Amino acid sequence: MNLNRIIFGNPLKTENIISERYSKTKALAVFFSDVLSSISYATDEILLALGLMFAHSFSMPVAGAIVGLIFVVSVSYWQSIEAYPDGGGAFTVVHENLGEFLGLITASALLIDYTLTVAVSLSVGARAVVSAFPSFAEHSVSFCMVSLLIITVSNLRGAKASSRLLTVPTYGFILVAFGMIIVGLGKSVPESNVIPECGVTEASNLLIIVVLLRAFAYGCSVLTGIEAIAGGVSSFHKPQYKNARVTLVVMFCILVFLFLGLTFVADKFHLVFLENESVISQMSHQLFGRGFFYYLIQLMTVFILLIAANSAFSGFPRLASILAEKKYIPTSFANLGDRLAYSNGIVMLALVSMVLILIFESDSFSLITLYSLGVFSSFTLSQAGMVKYWIRMRGKNWHIKVALNAFGSLATLVTLLVIIQSNFLNGAWIILLLVPIFFSVFLKINRRYQVTNVELDLKRGGLGKFLKPMGETKPKVVVPISRMHKGTLAALRFASSLSDDVVAVIVNVDQREVDKLKLAWRSMNFAIPLMILSSPYRSVVNPFLDFLSELDERDPEKGKTIVIMPSFVPGQFWQNILHNQTATILKTALFYRKQTSEETRVIVEIPYQMKK
Amino acid sequence: MNLNRIIFGNPLKTENIISERYSKTKALAVFFSDVLSSISYATDEILLALGLMFAHSFSMPVAGAIVGLIFVVSVSYWQSIEAYPDGGGAFTVVHENLGEFLGLITASALLIDYTLTVAVSLSVGARAVVSAFPSFAEHSVSFCMVSLLIITVSNLRGAKASSRLLTVPTYGFILVAFGMIIVGLGKSVPESNVIPECGVTEASNLLIIVVLLRAFAYGCSVLTGIEAIAGGVSSFHKPQYKNARVTLVVMFCILVFLFLGLTFVADKFHLVFLENESVISQMSHQLFGRGFFYYLIQLMTVFILLIAANSAFSGFPRLASILAEKKYIPTSFANLGDRLAYSNGIVMLALVSMVLILIFESDSFSLITLYSLGVFSSFTLSQAGMVKYWIRMRGKNWHIKVALNAFGSLATLVTLLVIIQSNFLNGAWIILLLVPIFFSVFLKINRRYQVTNVELDLKRGGLGKFLKPMGETKPKVVVPISRMHKGTLAALRFASSLSDDVVAVIVNVDQREVDKLKLAWRSMNFAIPLMILSSPYRSVVNPFLDFLSELDERDPEKGKTIVIMPSFVPGQFWQNILHNQTATILKTALFYRKQTSEETRVIVEIPYQMKK
Repeated sequence: MNLNRIIFGNPLKTENIISERYSKTKALAVFFSDVLSSISYATDEILLALGLMFAHSFSMPVAGAIVGLIFVVSVSYWQSIEAYPDGGGAFTVVHENLGEFLGLITASALLIDYTLTVAVSLSVGARAVVSAFPSFAEHSVSFCMVSLLIITVSNLRGAKASSRLLTVPTYGFILVAFGMIIVGLGKSVPESNVIPECGVTEASNLLIIVVLLRAFAYGCSVLTGIEAIAGGVSSFHKPQYKNARVTLVVMFCILVFLFLGLTFVADKFHLVFLENESVISQMSHQLFGRGFFYYLIQLMTVFILLIAANSAFSGFPRLASILAEKKYIPTSFANLGDRLAYSNGIVMLALVSMVLILIFESDSFSLITLYSLGVFSSFTLSQAGMVKYWIRMRGKNWHIKVALNAFGSLATLVTLLVIIQSNFLNGAWIILLLVPIFFSVFLKINRRYQVTNVELDLKRGGLGKFLKPMGETKPKVVVPISRMHKGTLAALRFASSLSDDVVAVIVNVDQREVDKLKLAWRSMNFAIPLMILSSPYRSVVNPFLDFLSELDERDPEKGKTIVIMPSFVPGQFWQNILHNQTATILKTALFYRKQTSEETRVIVEIPYQMKK
Repeated sequence: MNLNRIIFGNPLKTENIISERYSKTKALAVFFSDVLSSISYATDEILLALGLMFAHSFSMPVAGAIVGLIFVVSVSYWQSIEAYPDGGGAFTVVHENLGEFLGLITASALLIDYTLTVAVSLSVGARAVVSAFPSFAEHSVSFCMVSLLIITVSNLRGAKASSRLLTVPTYGFILVAFGMIIVGLGKSVPESNVIPECGVTEASNLLIIVVLLRAFAYGCSVLTGIEAIAGGVSSFHKPQYKNARVTLVVMFCILVFLFLGLTFVADKFHLVFLENESVISQMSHQLFGRGFFYYLIQLMTVFILLIAANSAFSGFPRLASILAEKKYIPTSFANLGDRLAYSNGIVMLALVSMVLILIFESDSFSLITLYSLGVFSSFTLSQAGMVKYWIRMRGKNWHIKVALNAFGSLATLVTLLVIIQSNFLNGAWIILLLVPIFFSVFLKINRRYQVTNVELDLKRGGLGKFLKPMGETKPKVVVPISRMHKGTLAALRFASSLSDDVVAVIVNVDQREVDKLKLAWRSMNFAIPLMILSSPYRSVVNPFLDFLSELDERDPEKGKTIVIMPSFVPGQFWQNILHNQTATILKTALFYRKQTSEETRVIVEIPYQMKK
């Protein structure tokens, strides 16, 4: 208990819930970490896809095309901000405008994405450490696990003070990245950097197109996280949507500058994709040598990635709680824990990301493949949702708004298809398989809750039975016994107080036990009769339940037989493995064996607590 | 349910238990498989330990020394048979004569050994298949798993007809092994078999001693299973102990002939240890080529190993049931399953062997190392137990009997020390660690059962409270409610029938739910008052339990407050994940929260069964 308090802190009262509001500067730090962190791997991705042959010729054109897409998506979000000032995430937008089916598809994609955000960010973070210290490679999974543990615990503590903490590394990363690009633009390329001479002329047009599309698809990972501001409008100072828009524009400018700048400098210095050293590490090494600035840049990269992982720990539990409130997942995901955090969602996210990191052995590039797919699905769907929204609302300039969002949706849809096409066998099929599975589970759970509600609903009538007071006739009572102890006595005593139609029952699975009980019975001089049920197949449950139905049918006006179960509670929980097996099985059977009549059976437990 | 019946068969009545009795021929087949199977790997073990350098010079001397040990152990068992005609296994002998401490040590060693019998036999079986079909190597773990599954299921079915089935492969193996040895003795060695020329002269005396001891220790694995007859005297036809003795002598002769013969022929043909081909496979290949006889011999080897694995499936559950009867392990291990087999023990053995095979990746040689250690511990202890027995009994010639068993015990003890010395770092430490852990778990469980017995014992008095009938005063009743449904109504109805001092309670963790309930309450016009408990920390359990203690203290003459818990049972079990979380937590708290007074609380459950 005390350890628990030290790690997670004291419980907080419900009234302590506060909704933090951010200034533009803080908001940028909070919402920017996710998309900013993707800068640290997007250029790597493009270079990986292009390969040595095409890297020099095409990395800038591909980056340019991606910037075009960033522009389209940003404009699209820029105007969505106005429509959902409460900060509807993609799920809310799609669910409200395009209905349950597409809403749940979006939710599935988002949940998978949050998980991948954690796995990708930590894996890329490990890669940044390995770039600086190659011998660290064998510890990269451990690095991810330790980081995950720290992030999970701090989120379970309900890290409310975090926004202030985030500003330093976020702005720090922006600064060092800016600095590196400026220095890179100014510095001349040393002659030792050889330009690979094989070029475009030797490749067929078809191959070039395939490679370009793949590079575009890989590079699109830089867009992940761009939706954060649109989903968080409600956290801005007033006037909310104006402040949010300004922040979005600033974010757009910084993102484009950093992404294009890094890719340009990488191209200028003829950097190529290396398995164990990131482009940022190669670049800062060339520009600054392995000195203070080099390590500062790596450190900032690791920080921004950890913060990106952390951001998923607020997004996932919040989305899960919305789904739980709408009864698409078990309602316990909407419970606030001791520290006012959605503990169940946090733990779930931590577990699934852990499994992902272990399965992929912190191989960031396999994970990023899966990542973009979900991101672009939710882009496409939420833009489409906005189209529907504007058509429904028909406000000022609605035609233009529809056109912009439709164009955004179309552009991201095409990108999505490119991503699927380039990555289908690389793992995209996993997502395409998981989304419908999630979707149908959500639906099944939701329908189940509805069925329960209908069946328990009092307005459906048939209540007479339940409201009529129980008659004066004493009920029938049966006490199943396996041996004589204080718990048994307490049960028999309560049974006698309830009725005078009591019978004690032992199922004969071991003649020695029966003989012992008979002896005890005689010596105690009980007024209650003892029945011995034979059990040729050594089952306790079946003979007892048969006997019970028999009793039920006798004197039906007395109602269903009440079962009084003596039990004892061992001093420590593990000791249950030594006792109570039969009692537990019997109780489960009493609960779950289908009843013939509608009447509810009363089951009484009298737990005798052992002192030791 | 039907699938269950097809796989495991229909339940059997208790009266169908039969104790099979064996003729000498059958008994040999039943008890011989374990020790016989070890012939198929013992020579490999000796050659492995000797290495290329010493194989030719020392394999026969080492085998000779081991035969000496077999003789000593057999004589020792030969006379134990007389003492325990009911077939006391090593555990019974040690427990009765040397007390609980050494008895439990023996039991631990035996349980570990049974598990290793399964793992070793299946792994060596896989190696025999690989010897014949080298490309099968990657499937050897799967081979073990499938065999394990078949053996487990057949034992859960209660394979009573098995003794007849066993005679064919057991005698078959003996026959083909005899045949191979005879042919091997007759055939001359082809000149192509090169004798490794490096020899003893180059090695230091110390090295030779170390190597010889290790070869002796490895080869001693041939003794595993030799105790089976002594433990099964009760299954012989009368006169039991005479028939058992005759069988033991026959077994001794066959064992020694086969072991010495195989080792001699292996030496004659200059066979060496090969990672992927057993000595038997090499030998039969040399003698018969890859023809019918070759494959017949491999097949028989696999069969005898499977039967040896199967034999552990009767030994382990039987020992477990004895330990459970004596309350050293949970009593459920003494329960006979549907098919009159000790199902729990069988499943436990299957699971642990499975884990062992997976951990060691069916590497038989690492497993055999662990194996002999346990075997020789139980040899040593049971012989020592016999010494004590004869001293206590002082029958005819007791001095001689003491001397023989003491010598047997000493010889096996020395062997045990050699085994530990040669294998300590190879894995013997695992066993040396496991045995005391098992031992202390057994003891802890036993003491726990004793404490329970004492505390529940009626003879210890303090029963007045339990026997005094409950007064005429109606008890206090509380009904915790979270929402209104038919189950709640049933609970309230039963509460009213019990007493007129009833209060319904809701813990306020969600104001909306409270408001809904209040509304329902007013519209139903209940006579029962509704209390709303505030819960600043969103816990349901604590405010409710506090309220309960408060109620308990009011009107103490009315006794402890009765808690009536409405609950509903979903149509399918998995749906519990959607409901009932709070009810389950609350009930657990009611059971396990320490009570201040000794009086037992009555807890009533009224499960409303949903139809869908």
